[in-house]
Amino acid sequence: VVVVLAGGTGGAKLARGMLDVVGGDELVVIANTGDDVHVHGVHVSPDPDLVTYSLADVIDARGWGIEGDTWRVMDALEAAGRPSWFRLGDRDLAMCLIRTELLRRGGRLTDAHAEVVRALGVTARVLPMADDPVETFVRSGGEWRPFQEFMILERGAQPEGVELRGVEAARPVPEALDAIARADAIVIGPSNPVISIGPILAVPGMRDALAAAPAAVVAVSPFVGGHAIKGPTEAFCRMAGLPSGIGAVEHAYAGVIDGVIADERSDSLPTLETGVLMDTSAARANLARSALEFSRALTAGRARR
Amino acid sequence: VVVVLAGGTGGAKLARGMLDVVGGDELVVIANTGDDVHVHGVHVSPDPDLVTYSLADVIDARGWGIEGDTWRVMDALEAAGRPSWFRLGDRDLAMCLIRTELLRRGGRLTDAHAEVVRALGVTARVLPMADDPVETFVRSGGEWRPFQEFMILERGAQPEGVELRGVEAARPVPEALDAIARADAIVIGPSNPVISIGPILAVPGMRDALAAAPAAVVAVSPFVGGHAIKGPTEAFCRMAGLPSGIGAVEHAYAGVIDGVIADERSDSLPTLETGVLMDTSAARANLARSALEFSRALTAGRARR
Repeated sequence: VVVVLAGGTGGAKLARGMLDVVGGDELVVIANTGDDVHVHGVHVSPDPDLVTYSLADVIDARGWGIEGDTWRVMDALEAAGRPSWFRLGDRDLAMCLIRTELLRRGGRLTDAHAEVVRALGVTARVLPMADDPVETFVRSGGEWRPFQEFMILERGAQPEGVELRGVEAARPVPEALDAIARADAIVIGPSNPVISIGPILAVPGMRDALAAAPAAVVAVSPFVGGHAIKGPTEAFCRMAGLPSGIGAVEHAYAGVIDGVIADERSDSLPTLETGVLMDTSAARANLARSALEFSRALTAGRARR
Repeated sequence: VVVVLAGGTGGAKLARGMLDVVGGDELVVIANTGDDVHVHGVHVSPDPDLVTYSLADVIDARGWGIEGDTWRVMDALEAAGRPSWFRLGDRDLAMCLIRTELLRRGGRLTDAHAEVVRALGVTARVLPMADDPVETFVRSGGEWRPFQEFMILERGAQPEGVELRGVEAARPVPEALDAIARADAIVIGPSNPVISIGPILAVPGMRDALAAAPAAVVAVSPFVGGHAIKGPTEAFCRMAGLPSGIGAVEHAYAGVIDGVIADERSDSLPTLETGVLMDTSAARANLARSALEFSRALTAGRARR
C-alpha cells in the first residue's frame, strides 16, 4: 500500500501520477475535508472530489468540477435568486447528492466518499482525514469566514489567521490509520502546508500515526523555483510565520517527514533534488515514482540503522 | 381569503382555477405532505410542488415536474448506478435543493415551501398541512411501503391498508389555522379522499378547525360520471370501505363539509350539481368560481339561520 496525503490540485496531481505507478489496488489517498461546505442543501467536499475526479480523469481543466459538465441546476438556482458564488455543475452535483444521501441515512463520511469513488469507477481509495466535521475558517479584514467563502468571495485577500473548528474532537478514520501502519511508502503531496495538509496533520493522532509508521514519510515541496505555482500558498505560509520555499515544508512537517523532494536542497533533511512541476502526465508519474522510490530508500536505510 | 385543500392533480387544477378567480393575494392552498420523500439526499414534496408548479403555469403535461425540464443530474445518477425509480428533472431538483437547504438550517417546512413558491414568482401561499413529518405508508401484497414507492414501483397494485405514520404528533401549521379562521370560502379540491385529502384531515386539530370555520366548507367530487378520472382513487375508496361516487365524498368528509359540488346529487348534503371535469383552463376557472360562490351562499344561508 502507498499512502498519499492530498489537499487540492498539487496533491491530486501527484495522486494521479501515483495511480500510474502503483495501480488503484495499492493506492490510498487521505484527503483534507476542512474545506467541506454545505451549499444548496448538499455536502460538498472540494478536496476529496478534486482527488477523485483527477483519479477518474474527469477533472475539468479549470481545476475543479467535472470536464464538460453542464449547469442546468445552477442556472435554475440563479434564476430563482439563490446565492450563486459556489458553482456546482450537474454531474458534480450528482456526486454530491450521492454523498449527501448516504450521510442523511446516518452513514460515515468515509463510506459516502467511497460511494462517489465507486460511482466514477475509481479503484483507489480516497479517505477523508476524519469522519467528524472539521471546518477551516480564515480571518481576513478582521472577519472570520469559512474557507470556501474566503477563497471564492475574498479572492486575493491577505489571510490573517486560520482556525480548524472542531478538529480537537475529530479522529483519523480507522482506514487511514490502518493504511498508514501498513504502507510501504507515504508521500505528502505538494499542497498548501497550512490550509490543505495542515488540517490533515492537525487531526489528533494523525501526526503520531505518521511518525510511528514503518514507512518513511516524504513530502513533495509545493514550491517551484522558490514560489508556489498558484493559489494562496505563499500568503498562508507568510501568515503562519513559515519561511518561504523548502523551509516552509521543513517547518510545517517537522517531526513527521523523513525527507523532502524539491528543486532545492534542505539543510536539515535528506533531499531528493528534482523538478517538481507536474505539467504533463509523464511528469506527474515520474515525480510520483521518484517520491515512491525515495520513501522506500529512506525506509530501507532506516531499517539498516 | 379563500382556502383550497389540495392533494395531487385535481386539487392543483382547482387551485389554479381559483387563482384566476380571486388572485394570488387572496389564495391559500393547504397541501398534503404525507407523500413527501427523501430521494438522492433531497426533500421532495410531490403534492405541494404539483400545486406550486400548477399555480406558476410550469407544470409538465405528464402531470408532475416542470415543463421542458432536462435530466442531466438524473442521467449522472443513473450512470453511477443509483436507484432511478424516482425521477427528478434538473429544475425540479433545484426547487428541492432550495427546500432542503432551508430545512438543513433548521427552518420550518412552511418557510421552505414559501421559498419555492417565491422562487417561481407565485404570489398565492402554498402551505404544508403540518411542519412535522407525516409519512403515508400503503400495504400491498402484505408489505408496507412509503406512498411514492407504492405508486411508482407497485403501479396498479391493490392497496390493502394505509397508515399515516407520525400523524398523531403532527399539528396543523399556524398559518393554515389562521387562514381557515379568516377564510370567506373553503373548498376541498377533487383529490383522492383517502390518501390525498385524508392525511390533511387526519392532522389533529384540522377537522375541528374546519368545522369551526366561519366559512362553509364545500368539497368538489373527484368522480366524473361515477368514476375517478385517473389514478388509484377508486381502489383506495374500496379499500377504505367507502361507497363509490359522491357517497365516498359524503362519508370521507362527514362532519367537515357543508356541501358537495358534483355531477350527481347527494342525498344528505346540499349539492351544486355541475360538471366537474377540468379539461380546459376555462373549465377549471368556472369550477373554481362555482365552488367559491357555493361556499359563500352556504355561509350566508348559515348566518341567516
